[in-house]
Amino acid sequence: MAKKVVNVGLLGCGFMGKAHSFGYRNVNEMWNPPVKVVMKCISGTEPKRIVKATAKALGWQEYETDWRRLIERDDIDLIDISTPNFVHEEQALAAAKAGKAILCEKPLANSLTSAKIMVKAIQKARVKAMCGFTYRQAPAVQLAKQMIEAGELGEIYHFRAVYLQDWIMDPDFPLVWRLQKPLAGSGALGDLGAHIADMALYLVGNISEVSGDLKTFIKQRPVQTTLAERGKERAVGGRAAKKGRVTVDDAAYWCARFTNGVVGTFEATRFAGGRKNFHSWQINGSKASIGWTFEDMNYLEYWKAGGGSKQGFRKVLATHPETPNWQAWWPDGHIIGYGECFVNEVKEMLTAIAENRQPVPSFRDGLKCQAVLDAVARSAKTRKWTRVPKV
Amino acid sequence: MAKKVVNVGLLGCGFMGKAHSFGYRNVNEMWNPPVKVVMKCISGTEPKRIVKATAKALGWQEYETDWRRLIERDDIDLIDISTPNFVHEEQALAAAKAGKAILCEKPLANSLTSAKIMVKAIQKARVKAMCGFTYRQAPAVQLAKQMIEAGELGEIYHFRAVYLQDWIMDPDFPLVWRLQKPLAGSGALGDLGAHIADMALYLVGNISEVSGDLKTFIKQRPVQTTLAERGKERAVGGRAAKKGRVTVDDAAYWCARFTNGVVGTFEATRFAGGRKNFHSWQINGSKASIGWTFEDMNYLEYWKAGGGSKQGFRKVLATHPETPNWQAWWPDGHIIGYGECFVNEVKEMLTAIAENRQPVPSFRDGLKCQAVLDAVARSAKTRKWTRVPKV
Amino acid sequence: MAKKVVNVGLLGCGFMGKAHSFGYRNVNEMWNPPVKVVMKCISGTEPKRIVKATAKALGWQEYETDWRRLIERDDIDLIDISTPNFVHEEQALAAAKAGKAILCEKPLANSLTSAKIMVKAIQKARVKAMCGFTYRQAPAVQLAKQMIEAGELGEIYHFRAVYLQDWIMDPDFPLVWRLQKPLAGSGALGDLGAHIADMALYLVGNISEVSGDLKTFIKQRPVQTTLAERGKERAVGGRAAKKGRVTVDDAAYWCARFTNGVVGTFEATRFAGGRKNFHSWQINGSKASIGWTFEDMNYLEYWKAGGGSKQGFRKVLATHPETPNWQAWWPDGHIIGYGECFVNEVKEMLTAIAENRQPVPSFRDGLKCQAVLDAVARSAKTRKWTRVPKV
Amino acid sequence: MAKKVVNVGLLGCGFMGKAHSFGYRNVNEMWNPPVKVVMKCISGTEPKRIVKATAKALGWQEYETDWRRLIERDDIDLIDISTPNFVHEEQALAAAKAGKAILCEKPLANSLTSAKIMVKAIQKARVKAMCGFTYRQAPAVQLAKQMIEAGELGEIYHFRAVYLQDWIMDPDFPLVWRLQKPLAGSGALGDLGAHIADMALYLVGNISEVSGDLKTFIKQRPVQTTLAERGKERAVGGRAAKKGRVTVDDAAYWCARFTNGVVGTFEATRFAGGRKNFHSWQINGSKASIGWTFEDMNYLEYWKAGGGSKQGFRKVLATHPETPNWQAWWPDGHIIGYGECFVNEVKEMLTAIAENRQPVPSFRDGLKCQAVLDAVARSAKTRKWTRVPKV
Repeated sequence: MAKKVVNVGLLGCGFMGKAHSFGYRNVNEMWNPPVKVVMKCISGTEPKRIVKATAKALGWQEYETDWRRLIERDDIDLIDISTPNFVHEEQALAAAKAGKAILCEKPLANSLTSAKIMVKAIQKARVKAMCGFTYRQAPAVQLAKQMIEAGELGEIYHFRAVYLQDWIMDPDFPLVWRLQKPLAGSGALGDLGAHIADMALYLVGNISEVSGDLKTFIKQRPVQTTLAERGKERAVGGRAAKKGRVTVDDAAYWCARFTNGVVGTFEATRFAGGRKNFHSWQINGSKASIGWTFEDMNYLEYWKAGGGSKQGFRKVLATHPETPNWQAWWPDGHIIGYGECFVNEVKEMLTAIAENRQPVPSFRDGLKCQAVLDAVARSAKTRKWTRVPKV
Repeated sequence: MAKKVVNVGLLGCGFMGKAHSFGYRNVNEMWNPPVKVVMKCISGTEPKRIVKATAKALGWQEYETDWRRLIERDDIDLIDISTPNFVHEEQALAAAKAGKAILCEKPLANSLTSAKIMVKAIQKARVKAMCGFTYRQAPAVQLAKQMIEAGELGEIYHFRAVYLQDWIMDPDFPLVWRLQKPLAGSGALGDLGAHIADMALYLVGNISEVSGDLKTFIKQRPVQTTLAERGKERAVGGRAAKKGRVTVDDAAYWCARFTNGVVGTFEATRFAGGRKNFHSWQINGSKASIGWTFEDMNYLEYWKAGGGSKQGFRKVLATHPETPNWQAWWPDGHIIGYGECFVNEVKEMLTAIAENRQPVPSFRDGLKCQAVLDAVARSAKTRKWTRVPKV
Repeated sequence: MAKKVVNVGLLGCGFMGKAHSFGYRNVNEMWNPPVKVVMKCISGTEPKRIVKATAKALGWQEYETDWRRLIERDDIDLIDISTPNFVHEEQALAAAKAGKAILCEKPLANSLTSAKIMVKAIQKARVKAMCGFTYRQAPAVQLAKQMIEAGELGEIYHFRAVYLQDWIMDPDFPLVWRLQKPLAGSGALGDLGAHIADMALYLVGNISEVSGDLKTFIKQRPVQTTLAERGKERAVGGRAAKKGRVTVDDAAYWCARFTNGVVGTFEATRFAGGRKNFHSWQINGSKASIGWTFEDMNYLEYWKAGGGSKQGFRKVLATHPETPNWQAWWPDGHIIGYGECFVNEVKEMLTAIAENRQPVPSFRDGLKCQAVLDAVARSAKTRKWTRVPKV
Repeated sequence: MAKKVVNVGLLGCGFMGKAHSFGYRNVNEMWNPPVKVVMKCISGTEPKRIVKATAKALGWQEYETDWRRLIERDDIDLIDISTPNFVHEEQALAAAKAGKAILCEKPLANSLTSAKIMVKAIQKARVKAMCGFTYRQAPAVQLAKQMIEAGELGEIYHFRAVYLQDWIMDPDFPLVWRLQKPLAGSGALGDLGAHIADMALYLVGNISEVSGDLKTFIKQRPVQTTLAERGKERAVGGRAAKKGRVTVDDAAYWCARFTNGVVGTFEATRFAGGRKNFHSWQINGSKASIGWTFEDMNYLEYWKAGGGSKQGFRKVLATHPETPNWQAWWPDGHIIGYGECFVNEVKEMLTAIAENRQPVPSFRDGLKCQAVLDAVARSAKTRKWTRVPKV
């Protein structure tokens, strides 16, 4: 008997679309999931020829230039939202209304209100909906989760995380959509801070209060202009590029109290020179400490209480046959990378569909993360410790 | 205009077949190569239902249970040999005779004689033929090669490499084909030593003389029996498993002189407890030193002469937009793994076909490696420094 | 002509006394300082025979059982205060009044008020007074300072630091003086947080505001009893050890804004399992990033902007002939440790005396650090961002 | 009762004299050894004023300009030979004849014959005699030894070691005594190779056969001239510096078989750019693997069999109260360096004197090492595996 087929409609022709495509392209063969995925159709807001070329380049059978049309198609089972943050809500609502399963990139939305609306929508529509915190899918992170659930860390005391990048340190880097609040919601906070907040919620538990701060180091940046405009500027004589105001944070950092007594520190920045995608966290418990860094994502750093003069942090290569989320891959010691996390992510989505349950992380996990980020932003304004609402 | 299509026939349903399939599955979408690959047909010596299932599982359109038949099919352009060493020669000869392009896993053959025959065959048939030293395809290794060719290391003095694994340390590990000389040719020498010898030849140059040694730590191992036989053994009362003689080396290690004056040390072993796939090398030159370790394959270790009190080995994350073999992948800092090296390898094979040239590494590179391994094995017998013949 | 001699009187027979003794014992021979030090006399509050034995063991010529007497001796030039925090003020005031130079262990005092009184006292008495932030004396830290002062980091954006230990994680660890507020002032905050606050002030500049939190994980601990009492307890039948309340923090963590626009995160804890003396900080600037960790104190981590595909954090071995604070030691690559930092510290004290200037770090530096810690403690109570007063 | 006093006479005013002085200066106070050391007298072949100044600078009570005189003094108990290799034999013989205990820097001698004579001499004279393989004294190395002796590694399979430096890579580096065979005996082989050979003998056991090679990369170097000569050269018009032949090896590398079946690789070089004092070894056994690198001398790398998906190499910080050779030092996590190894070394010498036994490593250990180096040098000539004689 042939397996049930899940036809995917992907919204977004950018970097995230490419990464998600990698997930869909390999999941059937690597994981042999209970339902089989088909890369049915992609849509984008780019000119038709570009969307068409992207469909072909990434291996999608068909394309649409109107995402609403794609969502409404009867032959689509799963809508993948790989678009900029500011359209997530609108697209998710349409997909839910159309009864589609959803895989939406993080952050779920640009505001807490928006995220709440989205969760309500998928609950009402009773569809499966996943929020794409892809880093959870690294085998080393899954091993960490397994250890924590088995009580191997004992009582947890500390969580600390940083997410460091450096791609906008050049003052001449232009005012892209990610630097404009109406489009991006926030800067490093929602882009990078969302990941470390999610890791904290996933591995340690709910956060009750935060006290944080947002910082914009470079407040004006060159406005991105069309090619025609740039030609004109040059014609009138080397006029300096027009500048616009950066309306999001370059860096966000905060202290946190968890409901279970754990204390934590968080830092997300795009101004850490030399750091490209340095997403790193550590957890200290009464029985063990663990740590993980994305750029070395195949390792889990692990210290276990006891051991006397021979104790020490060990570098666990999370490529063992028994490591969770590893079984589909290679012999021990043959590492995987960023793309493989998307294959694992899609596997979870398909398994949830087959098992008729919400995927992990769900839209509600996305909402919980949003509530933390929202509290951080409010605390940065009030200059006080701020409660994170239950959602 | 549609691109020319290359139909692949893959021989081998094992781990290597899975890895090569990953390469073919992703190369069109990730690299957009000048010719397009089609996963046409797979063959295996397993029972028909298993071959059929493997074809489906790995995404091959068709299957054959007789590899000769597959090679003879007119609709196949490229034969991929992902089978055990001892059939490489026979299969490559058949493929060459049939005028197919070939991608053959390393080691090229089980003996120097065999490798020579293979090179002659593909030369006579004028087919493109690649030897699968996949690790060359890591972007960090390509960056190393680029730096050496640009003279950035100056005069090279030292090459040192180890390839450490630990998967057969258990004395109860059975006498698999890889531990039998008639099937495997050699042990750690051909399996692991081949990779570090190839790296040396690729990055540093020809080796003129070697002095080495082979070591078998565990000389008898349980013979692998069929399920029926095992049942019988149990019936007659807990009889200990029958043991057979290990006829290959558990470890190989050697000193080498290169024709250009460089000196080197090499070690390949399956008895380095805790090491899973620790393939690591370092090169010291008059202007710079570099180093690489597969398990951290996205980094190149790099020291540059000068710098006074601020000099030091830097950890170069080989994920920069300008890093060779990286362009197809992700933003800076989003690492890749073992599977992606196969995608890069297949890209080189397809590019060579499109450009009507031999791929790199070619069968001749495989032969040169074999000549080094052969000299090491002879030196282990004669107990003398031994010349590596020009091939 | 013989060099001027500085006779030292050391207060304290504990671990710190031993570490400072190591400094005095080696400074003449290693650094050949402009004035020569003599280990004249030690005092302790222990029984006479213990103080006498300690004097002999550590190499002091004489001993006193009354520190006031030691301070009043005419033949003493420099008073070294290596006693618990709560007596620093009293001893420093007496030493200043007696016109002695002072080297006082950190934290300068148990309160901001106390620290202010101490600074006024040494100003009035016009004596040289150093606060023992020993980690500043590591050559790698001095190299960092040199680079920052030369502008090599450009504009600084981020400072982040942790100081992690695990020595009181056992709930049966007793209620020692360091866990009692009246004696220790604070817990991890003053003991460990003082070091990272000082590093921030030294390397980055003044801190304007902080928002932090203090946490005590284990609130009751066994009271330390005399041997006689313990015998009695056992006699009455296995009665559980009496417990007392821990009145200091086990962990302190805070966010900070610097007056120059830098933002920072700080964490000090005694509950980070597996971490013994993990004092670590990183600084990100527009032109370079640097980092340092005490347990690898001979290295400075260093990234420099530019370098394209060959950029990366380098591990600078701060043992180069040109590295500041290294010249007295060994050939390149022959590392030093904790004790050597005290030798370097004493060298600075002696040099300051010879040059008739305040040593670095001075008592005022100790006071500035105290002001930060005080603001953190207040902020933990008010739950608001809190200004750090100028001192 | 006062402890017995051991008066030391140190031969050598150079770098090694300074390092040994550090050992003597601190051993009484740090280790409280069973006999007390007194830094009695130093001798050197430099002009009297320099020897006198060195005595004062390093803390020696007296000085002699004739080392024979120093050896003959009745008030000297222990002769420390910190001079260049080529005078070790003559000085050791004189010291033995005078009935003095001896601590002689490695390598013991410039030839196997010479080393044998020295061992006979001290045996005949029945004096205590230590060979200064100082790196053995690092606590992490002592921990390794303890683990091996307790059987924690199981059956040992592999030893691999490198000792990498880069201080003579500049072709203009002059022809110092260390580059002249009559004075130095050999180059990297005896200077660096001696250390890794000794580690192998100490930790793993006797070596039965070796096959190695010696390499001199730069064959001519500027002759060191006196200041007067240099002035003359300049006067006659920028004449290029006179060059002389380098008669020792720049690099030595060899394979080895141990009598207990272990196999090993060794490499010692002064041409590994970026490596300052990179003395590093690893041992793989059936139950555990360990590794150590001098530049990170406070760590022992340790993998233990078992552990499934949570196994991994751990970084053991060898600063635990139970770590051998650590007790004298600081709290856990407060590292030590190169100098402290000499303090530990002198402690062993004094303890051996007090316990009326030979110190470890003894002169015989120095001889065994020499036998290995001698076999390597012979093998480099004969181009064959060469037996290491029992000594």
